Amino acid sequence: MPLAAQAEDLATWNDGPTRKAIIDFVKDVTTQGDPKFVPVEDRIAVFDNDGTLWTEHPIYFQFAFMLDRVKALAPEHPEWKENEPFKSILAGDMKGVEASGEKGIMEIGMETHAGMSTDAFQKIVSDWFATARHPKFKRPYNDLTFVPMRELLDFLRANGFKTYIVSGGGIEFMRPQTDQMYGIPPEQVIGSSIVTKYVLKDDIPYLMREPKVNFIDDGPGKPVGINNHIGRRPIFVAGNSDGDYEMLRWVTARGGPSLGIIVHHTDSAREYAYDRDTKVGRLDKAMTEAPERGWVLVDMKNDWKKVYDFEK
Amino acid sequence: MPLAAQAEDLATWNDGPTRKAIIDFVKDVTTQGDPKFVPVEDRIAVFDNDGTLWTEHPIYFQFAFMLDRVKALAPEHPEWKENEPFKSILAGDMKGVEASGEKGIMEIGMETHAGMSTDAFQKIVSDWFATARHPKFKRPYNDLTFVPMRELLDFLRANGFKTYIVSGGGIEFMRPQTDQMYGIPPEQVIGSSIVTKYVLKDDIPYLMREPKVNFIDDGPGKPVGINNHIGRRPIFVAGNSDGDYEMLRWVTARGGPSLGIIVHHTDSAREYAYDRDTKVGRLDKAMTEAPERGWVLVDMKNDWKKVYDFEK
Repeated sequence: MPLAAQAEDLATWNDGPTRKAIIDFVKDVTTQGDPKFVPVEDRIAVFDNDGTLWTEHPIYFQFAFMLDRVKALAPEHPEWKENEPFKSILAGDMKGVEASGEKGIMEIGMETHAGMSTDAFQKIVSDWFATARHPKFKRPYNDLTFVPMRELLDFLRANGFKTYIVSGGGIEFMRPQTDQMYGIPPEQVIGSSIVTKYVLKDDIPYLMREPKVNFIDDGPGKPVGINNHIGRRPIFVAGNSDGDYEMLRWVTARGGPSLGIIVHHTDSAREYAYDRDTKVGRLDKAMTEAPERGWVLVDMKNDWKKVYDFEK
Repeated sequence: MPLAAQAEDLATWNDGPTRKAIIDFVKDVTTQGDPKFVPVEDRIAVFDNDGTLWTEHPIYFQFAFMLDRVKALAPEHPEWKENEPFKSILAGDMKGVEASGEKGIMEIGMETHAGMSTDAFQKIVSDWFATARHPKFKRPYNDLTFVPMRELLDFLRANGFKTYIVSGGGIEFMRPQTDQMYGIPPEQVIGSSIVTKYVLKDDIPYLMREPKVNFIDDGPGKPVGINNHIGRRPIFVAGNSDGDYEMLRWVTARGGPSLGIIVHHTDSAREYAYDRDTKVGRLDKAMTEAPERGWVLVDMKNDWKKVYDFEK
């Protein structure tokens, strides 16, 4: 296909070194005869989700889902009025929730993500997306995808890439939405998971979600998840936080052409501005090492003409 | 596409109810307007590997690989001469190996499958396939695929299906071979796995294979593996043993058109004949329940004109 035409698809990226680095890379790996040419079956691109393809502030959207689920399920759990961290959630006391630490968060996760079939959970997730609204933008969460990143996904696919999500988020939380949001089908979504178990109920087989962690697809887990699901090393990787550090390292050490990019949240007006001093999506080590490792920092404020689709 | 033309591709299947059941099913789900029509993105087909796509007797081929690896590694392990089950392997005493039980088999598995990087293991597997020979047919193991099943894979793909392997075998044992053998890329192979871990060695990232079971993709594990990797329920399933029972149940209970087939090894002349009274690939419960559940038994001897490609 004529690459020049495809390149025009990155229309919401301002001209400059970032856009050029992406286009040059794609041109190199897709040009037959180029020393950096990569056959189409090896053109695998992996994208973090939270903060890379959509917004992750003020809290991870899956955490907002959990809080909403606790409120929805509270009538069936009178004991929650007395027990942390549920008591704080129901009282709207986020400091109290935070005080419950990782153990508390895990408990919230298990109460809201386990104890139902995979089919039932899928419906719960879809229903939540249909009604929940982001606190700042007052819009459905799946409106908060980044237009330039969706363009990048399209651009890569138009050039023979297979695009995957590799997220610390729940694999079954993402899958009902990713096709509509990004054109990424469920089988190309990799994420964290809890244990599921085959059971018969009235002689009908189900997969039941159990309150036990199966896999954490974050940090050093990301290369592991990629290898397990894909079985080959990608040539393109996009992340935005230190949770993507090991994935960036592993992909760009493949011993062949590769490109790693990092979405740097620099835009407090249109989205949020944060890097080293945040808890949600902290970017520190990966940013420090980016120059020596050749990772390209995407400056959201200056590289993107537009962040969201709903902007004027 | 014209289905009649595609159907001709099942040329090594004898005309009869089995071939007809497959062709009718594919015609129904691909005919726009048919009440059984299934959109292309949901046309997922899953295939067991051992005994379904290739031979599994006299021993699972991955077990033959393990035995060969023990012999190859023995010089580095003088202690194996004294310790079971290695002592029996080196003495060629298969009864002694069997006597070591599941624990012994697991030990052999870990010694031969762990302790190296994923890249190094891939090379070990490829090298083994290049040199090892099946004891009965005196041919490379990857010559022992079933021609009618490869035709069926092609036929389904030509009709918009995405084809997957779902095997109790090791995911990284299969992946280096499946593209060449079946046209199935690594990302469409689901199997058992050991734990892998991201490590830095001389500041280069690797995934190291650790001597610890991660996931057993057999029996009730198969629906779990499918759900984790694919995220949607297949509409076509092929197996050959009770290890495929739960996968057959789960797929054919989807609440929409589906087809389950079971390869029945009835051909002692061209391949092997076995079902209820074997350890390797035992077919008992699934065969008993096949009629009531509508699963189609493939009679290898009478349904297939040819088993292997190398037959005259």
